[in-house]
Amino acid sequence: MTKKAFKGIIAYPITPFTENETVDISLFKEQVEQLIINNADAIAPLGSTGVLPYLDRTEKQLIVKATIEQVAGRVPVLVGVSNLTTKETIEDAIYAESAGAQAVMIIPMSYWKLTDDEIYDHYKKVADQVNIPIMAYNNPATGGVDMSPQLLKRLLGIPNVTMIKESTGDIQRMHYLKKELGDQVDFFNGSNPLALGAFVAGATGWCTAAHNLIPKLNVALYQAIQNNDLKQAQVLFYKQVDVLKFIVEKGLPRSIQAGLEILGKKGGHLRSPLNVLSNEDKEQLKVLLEHATIE
Amino acid sequence: MTKKAFKGIIAYPITPFTENETVDISLFKEQVEQLIINNADAIAPLGSTGVLPYLDRTEKQLIVKATIEQVAGRVPVLVGVSNLTTKETIEDAIYAESAGAQAVMIIPMSYWKLTDDEIYDHYKKVADQVNIPIMAYNNPATGGVDMSPQLLKRLLGIPNVTMIKESTGDIQRMHYLKKELGDQVDFFNGSNPLALGAFVAGATGWCTAAHNLIPKLNVALYQAIQNNDLKQAQVLFYKQVDVLKFIVEKGLPRSIQAGLEILGKKGGHLRSPLNVLSNEDKEQLKVLLEHATIE
Amino acid sequence: MTKKAFKGIIAYPITPFTENETVDISLFKEQVEQLIINNADAIAPLGSTGVLPYLDRTEKQLIVKATIEQVAGRVPVLVGVSNLTTKETIEDAIYAESAGAQAVMIIPMSYWKLTDDEIYDHYKKVADQVNIPIMAYNNPATGGVDMSPQLLKRLLGIPNVTMIKESTGDIQRMHYLKKELGDQVDFFNGSNPLALGAFVAGATGWCTAAHNLIPKLNVALYQAIQNNDLKQAQVLFYKQVDVLKFIVEKGLPRSIQAGLEILGKKGGHLRSPLNVLSNEDKEQLKVLLEHATIE
Amino acid sequence: MTKKAFKGIIAYPITPFTENETVDISLFKEQVEQLIINNADAIAPLGSTGVLPYLDRTEKQLIVKATIEQVAGRVPVLVGVSNLTTKETIEDAIYAESAGAQAVMIIPMSYWKLTDDEIYDHYKKVADQVNIPIMAYNNPATGGVDMSPQLLKRLLGIPNVTMIKESTGDIQRMHYLKKELGDQVDFFNGSNPLALGAFVAGATGWCTAAHNLIPKLNVALYQAIQNNDLKQAQVLFYKQVDVLKFIVEKGLPRSIQAGLEILGKKGGHLRSPLNVLSNEDKEQLKVLLEHATIE
Repeated sequence: MTKKAFKGIIAYPITPFTENETVDISLFKEQVEQLIINNADAIAPLGSTGVLPYLDRTEKQLIVKATIEQVAGRVPVLVGVSNLTTKETIEDAIYAESAGAQAVMIIPMSYWKLTDDEIYDHYKKVADQVNIPIMAYNNPATGGVDMSPQLLKRLLGIPNVTMIKESTGDIQRMHYLKKELGDQVDFFNGSNPLALGAFVAGATGWCTAAHNLIPKLNVALYQAIQNNDLKQAQVLFYKQVDVLKFIVEKGLPRSIQAGLEILGKKGGHLRSPLNVLSNEDKEQLKVLLEHATIE
Repeated sequence: MTKKAFKGIIAYPITPFTENETVDISLFKEQVEQLIINNADAIAPLGSTGVLPYLDRTEKQLIVKATIEQVAGRVPVLVGVSNLTTKETIEDAIYAESAGAQAVMIIPMSYWKLTDDEIYDHYKKVADQVNIPIMAYNNPATGGVDMSPQLLKRLLGIPNVTMIKESTGDIQRMHYLKKELGDQVDFFNGSNPLALGAFVAGATGWCTAAHNLIPKLNVALYQAIQNNDLKQAQVLFYKQVDVLKFIVEKGLPRSIQAGLEILGKKGGHLRSPLNVLSNEDKEQLKVLLEHATIE
Repeated sequence: MTKKAFKGIIAYPITPFTENETVDISLFKEQVEQLIINNADAIAPLGSTGVLPYLDRTEKQLIVKATIEQVAGRVPVLVGVSNLTTKETIEDAIYAESAGAQAVMIIPMSYWKLTDDEIYDHYKKVADQVNIPIMAYNNPATGGVDMSPQLLKRLLGIPNVTMIKESTGDIQRMHYLKKELGDQVDFFNGSNPLALGAFVAGATGWCTAAHNLIPKLNVALYQAIQNNDLKQAQVLFYKQVDVLKFIVEKGLPRSIQAGLEILGKKGGHLRSPLNVLSNEDKEQLKVLLEHATIE
Repeated sequence: MTKKAFKGIIAYPITPFTENETVDISLFKEQVEQLIINNADAIAPLGSTGVLPYLDRTEKQLIVKATIEQVAGRVPVLVGVSNLTTKETIEDAIYAESAGAQAVMIIPMSYWKLTDDEIYDHYKKVADQVNIPIMAYNNPATGGVDMSPQLLKRLLGIPNVTMIKESTGDIQRMHYLKKELGDQVDFFNGSNPLALGAFVAGATGWCTAAHNLIPKLNVALYQAIQNNDLKQAQVLFYKQVDVLKFIVEKGLPRSIQAGLEILGKKGGHLRSPLNVLSNEDKEQLKVLLEHATIE
């Protein structure tokens, strides 16, 4: 499978928990199945949405295994393997490859702000140990590091670092990436409220948890872009933008869990300290979801 | 002339000076003529590009008069009348209307950060004294005040405040304006690097000084948007984005003055403390302009 | 008079207006007299507190003349002469010197962000035209430019630029100034809530409008520092910090005007768009002033 | 031991590693011994300096055990027990108490930005499980959450949350804490470059890794403050401020490791992705340390 495996709507499942905060694999598989049925172009477990850093090694391996089994080759799988230490990142990446993932995603998680050289070495050491493509993921809001476009360009010098995901929400950064790296690399948008702007700027795909709640609108937006129909894309975007802003503002795990319940599905529980949305927030999300219809 | 007079490319002339730093009206008129010849949809003197706050009352009136004369009704004229004090803003707005301008633009210039009520009263007092439409202009980078979308909405309650210009460079703000105010008001983009994103978000027009240097690319981008041709708009945008970023980063008056000289036209002089671009910057702009061609 | 003329409490009068918004020179003189009676070490008209940029040339000259007359040599006078253009700054500086001021203060006001070279040239051109010392004033919040410590150091290479006023509220910047420039230059603190920290860092004086309202506490704090009595300085600072924070947060002209009225004195009127404090804010200031007593 | 156990210089050891990146307990004990010999008032293992989040459970327990053994009751011990999940935080806090720590320190680590309620519940659940005091630690730069003064005040309603450590580097925040919470709580400064300002503002202690490198200057500064000798405190502060700024800017684990080597002691190795300082940085630190002497 080539690096061009990933495009369109890359759907991020949450990691649901049971009432006593253990991982609920059975519910996770149901949720993944829904993403596939609703035409996701790829499945990406263990992202921020999947509360990756709140899980231990065993739990992460269970999630990877469950994803590969449930997807069963229908779409490609992109596994998050980010860790604070290089050693654990390598171990998780090796596991993901051996389990059958098509690619891994790495955000340079940071407690101590890393230098550019430290980030480069981190990616290089992981890349040397796996054969599948790596998506370098920039998201200062959760990862704590803001990789410059120059650093992203440097990372692409590592042979199997072939994709970039940008979640800064800075459209000008996407312009830079497209302009500077355009033909070397696919870039993916991870900022939900920027979905339209990023596709217009040339993004290959949209990494989104919104597909758990409003899959038809997500898929139709990508389709309008493919059809070069700007006016239709604009209409579709404005139908979903309020939901996109809400889920980002309130936090993806909380919002998707609540949204699934609102839609009559099972959302499972969250792991402390994360807690469910307030009733007021749930009420607001309910109204937004009612208005976010494709007709 | 209705409020719908303004759309498309609203071109901002610089205010050129002679060597001893007096306003060069003759050169100004030549520059305005070029904007019209190159298919600007409107002319907007005394914007930030026109170094409005560096001019005295007499100079500003000369510029307004020269613009109206030169344009001679071929396109609508939008005059900047911003001042720190309410009294001077009213006086300049009355003059612009009497001289024949189709609309005035007001940014709430701020030395002391104004409260929302102070800003509202400022606009209200000016609006009460003129009959032409007012464009409320938000640009924290030069004006020092960042008007919230809520305040902008409130300003639209003043009958002749009918247009909004946004220069924050925040695409999500434009989404909000379009979504909340869409049918009540036309919004205009004043952030050059956001030209594509803003049109895609629904902007009625693009307020730009770039038209002094790369008018064909500016006009063609607007045309592609009108034709609902996203792919063509994207191609045209990437041809001009580096020039757009450069002129914003280095300052519009300095960059346009230098760019005109590079293109073999007269740029005039700047008023101190503003000074010409460094030779290194000029060299860079020269290269960017050579690459910013429509073919 | 040497550059060491300025130290201690440098008091900033407001510029009071009559009901129809003309400058009230008679009330201004009364207010200046109060500052002197209350042991100000210097008087600084036409600062931000004195709404310098909202005044025209004639008004500014009236204020300078009135200050010199009223002070009558009892303490040194420091006149604000900042303007957007270099030409007007020179003219105002020459006037201040001729009228008898001991020094002038210049903030590089900025609409278009100035380069370091432009700022340097601006100061150099003014300095070449006057013989009295110049205080370079850094206040990004009102002036729009943030001068780096390196630029401030460079400005001190101009012979009569001998004082620096820092209003960024960044205590680490003061450490840098003291450490790098310590023996070459006096630095003054313009951030009221940092009064204690700045004196402890080695500031020669405190530029403050608070002296219009709580002169005893201001003077006593400086005295405690002179006495090397840290514990007493701390006690005195905590008695006034809430007033200091309030007047900065609500804006100095508005707060001083309201505070004078609360204290039973005449505050005069403000010039639009600036408007008086809300009743709620006045009530809060009243309570704070009641608690800000020296006993 | 009461909550007043902690004051003065609270020294933070690094966690040294062997060449193959395993924890070097033997070297750790040597380093702790040096801190005690050099008159630290308390020892705080597993802080940011001790790369807490890069260690696994077993490693953290080894460090706690080694600290308690080495300190042997000579000074109080404050153990960092922060984790992303509430469950692990509770487990680590219980271990610290059982091992003999006098208090634990908790920063609300955040991948997903926590709500105030989630942070409160996190502290409450931990506090319910231990009997020793808890220091609530605010450091947005490493923890990712900025706790408002209001939230800090609310946390103090939990009986054994009795200390606050502030590392935002915002002196005004310390003023607020002192003014609002003064008699209820001890606050500690965790921002090295603010050491003087924080003591002057009323901080009970200074949490610092600098004590690994310049213990005499750290201790003497605290002593000058105790002696109410502002001038001496100022002199001592300016002797060490450049080292304080350097170690914060370059990262505490990297800087302390390098500084120990420069001083002829063993620094051990770092754990990837953290890497040693560049040679240029080491050279600069060497010069700074040579100048940071007490005479």
